[in-house]
Amino acid sequence: MTSNATHQTDVAIIGAGPVGLFAVFECGMLKMKAHVLDALDMAGGQCSALYPEKPIYDIPGHPRIDAAELVRQLEAQAAPFKPVYHLGHAVTRVESHGDRFLVGNANGVTVDARAVIVAAGVGAFGPNRPPLEGIEAYEGKSVHYLVKRREDFRGKRIVIAGGGDSALDWVLSLADLAAHVYVIHRRPKFRAAPESVARMEALVKTGKVEMVVPYQLADLEGSNGQISAVIVSTLDGQTRSLPADALLPFFGLSMNLGPIAQWGLNLEHNHILVDPATCATSRAGIFAIGDIAHYPGKLKLILSGFAEAASAAHAIYPLVHPGEVLHFEYSTTSGVPAA
Amino acid sequence: MTSNATHQTDVAIIGAGPVGLFAVFECGMLKMKAHVLDALDMAGGQCSALYPEKPIYDIPGHPRIDAAELVRQLEAQAAPFKPVYHLGHAVTRVESHGDRFLVGNANGVTVDARAVIVAAGVGAFGPNRPPLEGIEAYEGKSVHYLVKRREDFRGKRIVIAGGGDSALDWVLSLADLAAHVYVIHRRPKFRAAPESVARMEALVKTGKVEMVVPYQLADLEGSNGQISAVIVSTLDGQTRSLPADALLPFFGLSMNLGPIAQWGLNLEHNHILVDPATCATSRAGIFAIGDIAHYPGKLKLILSGFAEAASAAHAIYPLVHPGEVLHFEYSTTSGVPAA
Repeated sequence: MTSNATHQTDVAIIGAGPVGLFAVFECGMLKMKAHVLDALDMAGGQCSALYPEKPIYDIPGHPRIDAAELVRQLEAQAAPFKPVYHLGHAVTRVESHGDRFLVGNANGVTVDARAVIVAAGVGAFGPNRPPLEGIEAYEGKSVHYLVKRREDFRGKRIVIAGGGDSALDWVLSLADLAAHVYVIHRRPKFRAAPESVARMEALVKTGKVEMVVPYQLADLEGSNGQISAVIVSTLDGQTRSLPADALLPFFGLSMNLGPIAQWGLNLEHNHILVDPATCATSRAGIFAIGDIAHYPGKLKLILSGFAEAASAAHAIYPLVHPGEVLHFEYSTTSGVPAA
Repeated sequence: MTSNATHQTDVAIIGAGPVGLFAVFECGMLKMKAHVLDALDMAGGQCSALYPEKPIYDIPGHPRIDAAELVRQLEAQAAPFKPVYHLGHAVTRVESHGDRFLVGNANGVTVDARAVIVAAGVGAFGPNRPPLEGIEAYEGKSVHYLVKRREDFRGKRIVIAGGGDSALDWVLSLADLAAHVYVIHRRPKFRAAPESVARMEALVKTGKVEMVVPYQLADLEGSNGQISAVIVSTLDGQTRSLPADALLPFFGLSMNLGPIAQWGLNLEHNHILVDPATCATSRAGIFAIGDIAHYPGKLKLILSGFAEAASAAHAIYPLVHPGEVLHFEYSTTSGVPAA
């Protein structure tokens, strides 16, 4: 995307997920330019990398939008402000230089900015792997940690493992095209949204979905990368063999803050502590928003990250435009420059 | 909409503006039913009553959406949860009854709920009127405090007065269809969004828009409700006569909390003070969100109100579902019931 060089800008945004993209827009509305860096080679973060086809229902004003389409809309909304994207560039260092920051990576790209917004989601992320012997041989063939194309699962017998929102969202999404869906959870109680649990229970009544609880994954049978059955067991050793073509374990993402942990920011349980009034971190000039930020009452919702992007941009404004007073009396409905 | 009766529900939402509508959705996602009361006879609050055709640019994931369309989308998003709307019903009282609330109005409608969300915007609102003798005779004919249809102003010579976002938004919106636009402001500096000011200045260069600053409104000339000129003056008494077909004064809305001020909530400058972690007011079980709520760092943006709606719903959940633990690990992408 960009050559190895030092790029001057107002705000360096680390993370090109939905919240980072909306931060570009909010900075632009306040006449601040932004460069965006992301380890992935595309914008959109988890929305693009993990669940592009997954419908999202809780984006205000979008009764239903696929993750990839949300990312496209946010890119279009940011575009008039001409952000520069450095994709495929994991940020490794954030150094203070007077009142500016040098945000750099191993490939030699450096962004020189007055402020930094960390919108890095869960940091470098990867799925938690179930502890099954030999699972590696099936991964990417019949064991999947993400669904890139729903169509790949048409007519298949699927075992979905996990009790959270990701597991249930995929139960609900795949039930109508799969031949059969087993849901494995080690507890009878699911911790997904109550509404999702209710919808799954309705599918159980139709016979499309079968709940196998309280069971946990115990073993896989199959050959040449193709599973033929998933063996599950209770805590007291009862086992069942479920004939299956695919296993989708959703045991959450392992968070790895990686180099972010070295930037001198106050952390708590792998999250960056911020002042909720401004999203300021413990290091002046560095802000954190979205899933990586924590404060009392924090909800890990994309829509909360959007509001945090607005807060951070407003807090950064006096740093970039010292002495200029910004009045915001009511919800802004200001225009944007022609793209 | 509804008969005079006492309606039992989980949450009474006061205000059917965009933030109140999204609160219905957030409550629904947490399996809580809602009744919504609003003084206006339609949903949408200011979006519907004051600027239905105005484009909004800062709703995340909507690069541009008209206010009325935003309201339609939010109604559709709330619809699966079957909210009951009591429109044209200004709430006059909120009484505690054990751990429940009776939310009532003068017409005899009473909602009996476990929790109350006040999403009343600026309360009962009306435009601030410029102190011009005889202005009443022109109001609604050639002096307008809101634009219901842009087309009504095609080919007209328009005087727009004010220095805030509303004034400049309409300068930008009407410039391409008006014959001429004068912008009157008593200070040289505008307090609208910097991006809007820059766009207005670009229109001034084309001759479409003329800035008349620092001037204030002094008098009107005309007859039978139709103005022919707007007289403006400087502080030291210089005057100019601007030939004009329409005057649009945007001096803000007068806020009138009305009965809300009597509900025993901690207030500050006509706003309700809330804990930003939960949007809880000083009265247990009553929450406030959107423009009427205040806390350190509060931004009066619709998108911030959306996030506050999520916070309030999560804080209300244990009141409606005592003893049930709600886990929200990541941004929910849970499904909604079929409408």
